[in-house]
Amino acid sequence: MKQLFRSAFLSLPLLAVAASPPPSAGEIVARAPASAWAELAAGDLLVIDLDGDQRIVIALATAFAPIHVANIKALVRAGWFDGITINRVQDNYVTQWGDATEKKPLPPGIVASPPAEYERPLAGLGFRAMPYRDAYTAKTGHAGGWPAASDGELAWLPHCYGMIGVGRNMPPDTGSGAELYAVIGHGPRHLDRNIALVGRVLAGMEALTALPRGSETMGFYKEGIARPTIRKARLAADMSNGERPAFEIMQSEAPDFTRWVEARANRKDAFFIRPAGAVDICNALPPVRPLPSRR
Amino acid sequence: MKQLFRSAFLSLPLLAVAASPPPSAGEIVARAPASAWAELAAGDLLVIDLDGDQRIVIALATAFAPIHVANIKALVRAGWFDGITINRVQDNYVTQWGDATEKKPLPPGIVASPPAEYERPLAGLGFRAMPYRDAYTAKTGHAGGWPAASDGELAWLPHCYGMIGVGRNMPPDTGSGAELYAVIGHGPRHLDRNIALVGRVLAGMEALTALPRGSETMGFYKEGIARPTIRKARLAADMSNGERPAFEIMQSEAPDFTRWVEARANRKDAFFIRPAGAVDICNALPPVRPLPSRR
Repeated sequence: MKQLFRSAFLSLPLLAVAASPPPSAGEIVARAPASAWAELAAGDLLVIDLDGDQRIVIALATAFAPIHVANIKALVRAGWFDGITINRVQDNYVTQWGDATEKKPLPPGIVASPPAEYERPLAGLGFRAMPYRDAYTAKTGHAGGWPAASDGELAWLPHCYGMIGVGRNMPPDTGSGAELYAVIGHGPRHLDRNIALVGRVLAGMEALTALPRGSETMGFYKEGIARPTIRKARLAADMSNGERPAFEIMQSEAPDFTRWVEARANRKDAFFIRPAGAVDICNALPPVRPLPSRR
Repeated sequence: MKQLFRSAFLSLPLLAVAASPPPSAGEIVARAPASAWAELAAGDLLVIDLDGDQRIVIALATAFAPIHVANIKALVRAGWFDGITINRVQDNYVTQWGDATEKKPLPPGIVASPPAEYERPLAGLGFRAMPYRDAYTAKTGHAGGWPAASDGELAWLPHCYGMIGVGRNMPPDTGSGAELYAVIGHGPRHLDRNIALVGRVLAGMEALTALPRGSETMGFYKEGIARPTIRKARLAADMSNGERPAFEIMQSEAPDFTRWVEARANRKDAFFIRPAGAVDICNALPPVRPLPSRR
């Protein structure tokens, strides 16, 4: 009893007779045709294995922050992240990893502080706005499998749960990409357009959230505390056949995607008394699902 | 280096000479006079001690859900929660606790399904709206130290990170209060007006978030998995002098509170290039701080 948000699936046959309710968001995703999905390029999939065999998989946002993403790929391929630790876990905010010694030199070819890739032209993105208000900007919606926000001219990735950003010092520094953070709480949207967002966690969030919070200022771990350590960071494209993970993401151009957004905004399963009539962008992150390992 | 969100405090003296920046949100809170704060009543403070000595402190929202809150207090005073376990941890959603056997009888006097205390009249709350849009409703703001949302006639608590709600079955069931959940991700505001919210976590969120996610449907723990257990749940009012915790909360009527909201919306410390110009209600939860234990 008292199973909050019990699935409506159980009672669907009965309801179908009574009222033929519209499909739920989950049902729309489950029934969407193959054409509604696209596999993420293996060259844009960052696979981070931690000591203890936890795995985090991150989609990299080349369309939004190409130079920062190129930096990250070069750091990965140089093995720079291997042995790096999680140093900061601030509750309802971010988990951050990088070189705790602050002395590990960057490999050659890394741009120490790329241009501020905090926003980009809206044109060319294929942005599709949701018909709902946003607290922070004129429009929010989706573009190529990404959540996005826009003022009509520029577009940017929003700071939602699971998004990956580039730690930086005071401006004009933009960060090299050698220090990264994941959002682990309510979307800190005030950071939008102030930091380069470079990706989204597709799997393994638990490895970033089910961690002791840091006791020091801004959630940094106290010196001497054992820290989760990256055993190996790789691009899926560099992993051998059969072992590399693969994911597909629902495409915002698909008619079923539009129906999914509407169903997220207007939940009509038997649990809900009053559908919200709206959904904010951080509660409408495009559906993602794993594919069998590629061969 | 790359300490994301490095505090502006370090560079303040220099900046003060150059431009005299307005105080940050944190500075406004730190400098607010005693009159801007009010201590929470010990009878409305729920103190949950878990095995392993982690403590969670929750403010109960009597003004929004009086009968559910009365139920919870009666359950606490009957010792009903002692020995109860956390049974569900769904990433980016909720951590939920209750009687895993689903057979523990409720003590006498508990209303099994109170009226649906999902909203209440706006009048009498002292609601102060923020001057910003909300994705979900007409107005959001604050009332008596609580975040609140309103359509102009009714008001309700919003589902923000750290808010506590009452698990329920399908309507018309509203839940007794014997099964509770805490929001541990981006605010699932679609649940607003569909469930009784009864409180807010003031301290100890880590005990609810730094937990393994459940592997079963909706994040329930698999049978046989070790679950965090409540050793003792008490009201602060029932704890002995010197051991009971105390908290104060910044009051929305205080001029400094209005300044704090504005500073949250327009961050002007040296880290920010572009202040957001707005803040959503879940990023503007009233500041809380512990007081010395009461004697």
